[in-house]
Amino acid sequence: MPYVLVSTLFNDENSPTVVGDALSDPALMRILDAEKVRVYRKKLPEYRVWVPARVVLDKLEEEGYIVKSMTTVEQTIVWCLHKPCQINDHTGTNHRLVSAQAMPARKLRDGGPNCATPTDPLTAEV
Amino acid sequence: MPYVLVSTLFNDENSPTVVGDALSDPALMRILDAEKVRVYRKKLPEYRVWVPARVVLDKLEEEGYIVKSMTTVEQTIVWCLHKPCQINDHTGTNHRLVSAQAMPARKLRDGGPNCATPTDPLTAEV
Amino acid sequence: MPYVLVSTLFNDENSPTVVGDALSDPALMRILDAEKVRVYRKKLPEYRVWVPARVVLDKLEEEGYIVKSMTTVEQTIVWCLHKPCQINDHTGTNHRLVSAQAMPARKLRDGGPNCATPTDPLTAEV
Amino acid sequence: MPYVLVSTLFNDENSPTVVGDALSDPALMRILDAEKVRVYRKKLPEYRVWVPARVVLDKLEEEGYIVKSMTTVEQTIVWCLHKPCQINDHTGTNHRLVSAQAMPARKLRDGGPNCATPTDPLTAEV
Amino acid sequence: MPYVLVSTLFNDENSPTVVGDALSDPALMRILDAEKVRVYRKKLPEYRVWVPARVVLDKLEEEGYIVKSMTTVEQTIVWCLHKPCQINDHTGTNHRLVSAQAMPARKLRDGGPNCATPTDPLTAEV
Repeated sequence: MPYVLVSTLFNDENSPTVVGDALSDPALMRILDAEKVRVYRKKLPEYRVWVPARVVLDKLEEEGYIVKSMTTVEQTIVWCLHKPCQINDHTGTNHRLVSAQAMPARKLRDGGPNCATPTDPLTAEV
Repeated sequence: MPYVLVSTLFNDENSPTVVGDALSDPALMRILDAEKVRVYRKKLPEYRVWVPARVVLDKLEEEGYIVKSMTTVEQTIVWCLHKPCQINDHTGTNHRLVSAQAMPARKLRDGGPNCATPTDPLTAEV
Repeated sequence: MPYVLVSTLFNDENSPTVVGDALSDPALMRILDAEKVRVYRKKLPEYRVWVPARVVLDKLEEEGYIVKSMTTVEQTIVWCLHKPCQINDHTGTNHRLVSAQAMPARKLRDGGPNCATPTDPLTAEV
Repeated sequence: MPYVLVSTLFNDENSPTVVGDALSDPALMRILDAEKVRVYRKKLPEYRVWVPARVVLDKLEEEGYIVKSMTTVEQTIVWCLHKPCQINDHTGTNHRLVSAQAMPARKLRDGGPNCATPTDPLTAEV
Repeated sequence: MPYVLVSTLFNDENSPTVVGDALSDPALMRILDAEKVRVYRKKLPEYRVWVPARVVLDKLEEEGYIVKSMTTVEQTIVWCLHKPCQINDHTGTNHRLVSAQAMPARKLRDGGPNCATPTDPLTAEV
């Protein structure tokens, strides 16, 4: 789960900040104190919090996520955040977090280090 | 094929995520489990999946693609992803994946390493 | 507080530049000479200045913030700025400011260097 | 000419992809197989191709251009691409392509390496 | 002045490209050959040129500015450009231009190298 989408109505203090969808990582959602809710006229649940989006971005940075881009749909701002994977790049600088793009795709698919869980053993050993 | 465009209707759980056009790499489309469909009133087919765009971004990162920018057309969010090429930069750090822009254009056009296929031999040897 | 959102009406010299919300860092707001105001029909206060957004971006760079992305809601442009954390990456280059994403999440949460305050001792010793 | 703007109507297979304006580099336009056309109600010509924008981005990467940002005007998506200049940074890593911003402005203006032409001798010697 | 905002009406060859506001650096405006004009119904003047925005981006790169993001307000595209500061990072690579964010805020405010002027002595000595 290297990507997280965060969205909120701009300038509306009465609307929640949506931080996840039905397939989001429950562990990350717990860290964000997000509640899983069923929204009116939607089949699938979503995760949301009642703090400003800016504060959510700050929290997500503590988990290793960084804003890649931002766009707007009508009145809703959407942030796209990305968490780079951690690998040993064999240059003497151990355990530097680098983007998953720096690893060959095959290695990633065949059980290499992944970005999904905060309990990732490769991250834990640092 | 270093670029992939991913698009989906924002906040509409009943719409597919479009991941390719008529000229997209069939191998990558297979990896994404995308179906090639002919859309109403369109001459050319497109590839689509029925998972949220966020999950597609996660899958594409496993293939080496990373989000460069994001924009919105009416209700549709469009992500532009880029896959950097892999080259040996002769600095002792072998096989680092770097952007194609780090290679002179001539070398790229005259049979240098390219980003197109997942079976790229330069990538495979890592 | 590694993220700051700056917004202003495009091409309207009579509108303020909003630089903070109710939870923004008061120390940073003071540095920006921002006034805390209660806006009509809003429960929560916001911080604003009466200089063009471009000048605010310049000021925020002096505090270590850099523009990550920019979007537009109706007539309002919104900038998303990010302040990377400073850590010692043990490569001989001491005290390089790098993004918080380069640190394992656990270390950050358990009292590692944070990005919040301009009086951060790790920054001060450089 | 380190910047190129590419634009196309989103999801409209009958519209061209615009790749250049009246002042664009004719050599680059030839590489893209772009035709110079005069558009209805416009005084100045523009360059366009009849392939999807995604394919143009792929082609431009081969020439050293990389997507910096993307935005939308009504139904038209606009990509802003940038080609970093190539310089010797005297660190043992010869001929690394770095952004022109890494060179002092004076050197650039007084005949230093430029990004303009594919036949740039500094690029050619790599 | 590490930030510059450039804006122009999309696809309108009869409109100018706005490159500065009342507080913009006059020296940079001269380099861009921009005229200071008072626009109808505006109290404050702005700087503009009659060349396409793409050409302005090219010129600004020669001055060390690079596009960070791009957005659209109605028919107007806005580019946000940033000029990284130049510092000695004491790693043997002298005079590399790096972002101001790599310097502690205090040093910047207390007379450290700044990004404001093209005649910055630190830049000149390279």
